Amino acid sequence: MKKARLEAFSDGVFAIVITLLILNVKLPETDYEHLAEGLPGMLSSIGVYALSFLLIGMYWMFHHHTFSFIAEVDGVILWINIIFLLFISFLPFPTSMLGKYPLKELPILVYGINLILLNFMGFLGIVYLRRNKQLSTSLFTDAAFRTQMKTYFGVNLMYAACILIAFFSPLVSILLLTVLTLYLIIRSAIFVGIGKCILPDGRRDK
Amino acid sequence: MKKARLEAFSDGVFAIVITLLILNVKLPETDYEHLAEGLPGMLSSIGVYALSFLLIGMYWMFHHHTFSFIAEVDGVILWINIIFLLFISFLPFPTSMLGKYPLKELPILVYGINLILLNFMGFLGIVYLRRNKQLSTSLFTDAAFRTQMKTYFGVNLMYAACILIAFFSPLVSILLLTVLTLYLIIRSAIFVGIGKCILPDGRRDK
Amino acid sequence: MKKARLEAFSDGVFAIVITLLILNVKLPETDYEHLAEGLPGMLSSIGVYALSFLLIGMYWMFHHHTFSFIAEVDGVILWINIIFLLFISFLPFPTSMLGKYPLKELPILVYGINLILLNFMGFLGIVYLRRNKQLSTSLFTDAAFRTQMKTYFGVNLMYAACILIAFFSPLVSILLLTVLTLYLIIRSAIFVGIGKCILPDGRRDK
Amino acid sequence: MKKARLEAFSDGVFAIVITLLILNVKLPETDYEHLAEGLPGMLSSIGVYALSFLLIGMYWMFHHHTFSFIAEVDGVILWINIIFLLFISFLPFPTSMLGKYPLKELPILVYGINLILLNFMGFLGIVYLRRNKQLSTSLFTDAAFRTQMKTYFGVNLMYAACILIAFFSPLVSILLLTVLTLYLIIRSAIFVGIGKCILPDGRRDK
Repeated sequence: MKKARLEAFSDGVFAIVITLLILNVKLPETDYEHLAEGLPGMLSSIGVYALSFLLIGMYWMFHHHTFSFIAEVDGVILWINIIFLLFISFLPFPTSMLGKYPLKELPILVYGINLILLNFMGFLGIVYLRRNKQLSTSLFTDAAFRTQMKTYFGVNLMYAACILIAFFSPLVSILLLTVLTLYLIIRSAIFVGIGKCILPDGRRDK
Repeated sequence: MKKARLEAFSDGVFAIVITLLILNVKLPETDYEHLAEGLPGMLSSIGVYALSFLLIGMYWMFHHHTFSFIAEVDGVILWINIIFLLFISFLPFPTSMLGKYPLKELPILVYGINLILLNFMGFLGIVYLRRNKQLSTSLFTDAAFRTQMKTYFGVNLMYAACILIAFFSPLVSILLLTVLTLYLIIRSAIFVGIGKCILPDGRRDK
Repeated sequence: MKKARLEAFSDGVFAIVITLLILNVKLPETDYEHLAEGLPGMLSSIGVYALSFLLIGMYWMFHHHTFSFIAEVDGVILWINIIFLLFISFLPFPTSMLGKYPLKELPILVYGINLILLNFMGFLGIVYLRRNKQLSTSLFTDAAFRTQMKTYFGVNLMYAACILIAFFSPLVSILLLTVLTLYLIIRSAIFVGIGKCILPDGRRDK
Repeated sequence: MKKARLEAFSDGVFAIVITLLILNVKLPETDYEHLAEGLPGMLSSIGVYALSFLLIGMYWMFHHHTFSFIAEVDGVILWINIIFLLFISFLPFPTSMLGKYPLKELPILVYGINLILLNFMGFLGIVYLRRNKQLSTSLFTDAAFRTQMKTYFGVNLMYAACILIAFFSPLVSILLLTVLTLYLIIRSAIFVGIGKCILPDGRRDK
């Protein structure tokens, strides 16, 4: 299995999931005169649509970044990647749940667990790569490994906090998740480089 | 992030959205004897399907053209592009709305705002590229920048006009949008080159 | 616009349409005990699924073959190709119609017209290529042009016959369309080469 | 037809099918208070989703492995591959059936037959390749052929056993299918190589 083919397959899955999300934004089953009544439901669906779209876009970038550490794909990395994609492909389900039952704790619980499991697969991949250095590129330095570990632990902690807060105030939980997503997006944008297209440590991302 | 990978991902999203549109053309829930009664609804869905299909095809070409100006992708261009794709992926929703409630003002309003936001992201990308010339190719001349600016302002003005007209006559609004789409298609076809495959300014598009 | 990018985009649309077809094969809304009653409906949907899948697979091959005649893509070929893809993407609609109302004339009429318009776009492309020889490859000989013309006329004649026959016997019409599809598949398989992978005229397809 | 284009098309279909599966995991049509009642149905859908996702992932790897034996694609291999993809694309239907009617014999029967037909197309391809050695690569040794034959017969025997057992105990049948899938995954992971990325026979997979 060439690395490039696994990457192309993963990109395909990302592109399809991100585009399928719109199927969860549904019109209410009413005639035009009563469409206004269905508006709040539509707006919550649209908000959740945007959140999931940006999150999946962010994971796509992150997936790409992780693959810059991988020189060769073995059977374990391959299956860790497929199960990672399983959790990416699953996201439309909690997304539709969150759109249909906004500001309730159960959808946030399912959404949060999905994201935690997603991160867990990424974490597993990085740990496995660390123990099988012959599969990694020279970009996978000790510093890169530690940054990844910190990111996984930090983000999962935030996801867990969102879940816990949901039992007290679903609204605060959703707002926190939105802020976290925007923070991760800005951080990823800075990482790829702003303006001068230079990585924080002065190397160019390829 | 290599430019080629972002382009391939964008192409994937375009191909999926354009193909998903057909899921909005639904059969009425009647038996065969009463199928004729559902015909007007189906025909309006099919008309809107064709309009959105051609519009997305046109934006795909335009996206490709814009990327000929980009030499290197940084974090800002990457996220502008992802949010641009968010608005492309959203189009099936106003399309289904327009198909279900034809000749009403609200669907046209949502459809029009979607298109204006789409253009706004493209506009943002071009302005950012102008301010970060080190990311652009030699094709991104002052003349090319001005042409892009004129196109964004002109087309958004037309979209805004369609929205305004919808409050007086939805039919005229839809007809205007259709004529505008056909005009943009013919213009894009001429730009890529007719017959001799030569750009207006004598250079070949690659 | 490079030819390769238009081909990749077209391949993407083909792959998505062919895979979306399964969404039209739906389970009846009954509990398990009454599932048997919904079986005839499911079987007709499955039959139509297989027919459309094979037809689209065949058009995919044919599209690939046609592109071997094209050296450069201009604006007209580009838009002929996008409208061709519009009719490919539309096929799931008559497919679902034919599955829901089997052995009725209207679905066959819509299905047949869709196929005829599909062929018409292909025909238009070939005629345009003939008049703009500078866009064609050396494979686009006079003999190749005549073969294409004969195929379009012959197949469209058969499609028209299927539509006409549908008004007398939908069953015979569907059977004829199935036989025609199988004939086109066998013909295309022979054309690509059997066993020795040689084209009929001794050249290898690349 | 270049082998690479057929592989890319097949990869596209695999990526789309594997991602479409989530559309079968549906929310119950109840308000939030009664969501708990729909939970068992959702859980069975989710379980079947995971099973089909992993199975399709496994077939994707297997498809890739099989193509390493093919040097040139002729018309017969092309159509065997398209019909193989037809059975891959069909899997969402028995998957949704199994999710809607869990622990019933009919869905397992349909699911099992689908898998057996899938394997049959793969088997057909390998036998055809054996008889047309000029189309195969040097990797397609006698030993490789025998391994493939054994795999097809062994796995189909297990699928048939799952179907038979379903008439006595659907639960045992599903458990057996799950164990078989996990076994095939582990086996495929070992085959691609664990840790040192070396094939069982010491050659590296490319």
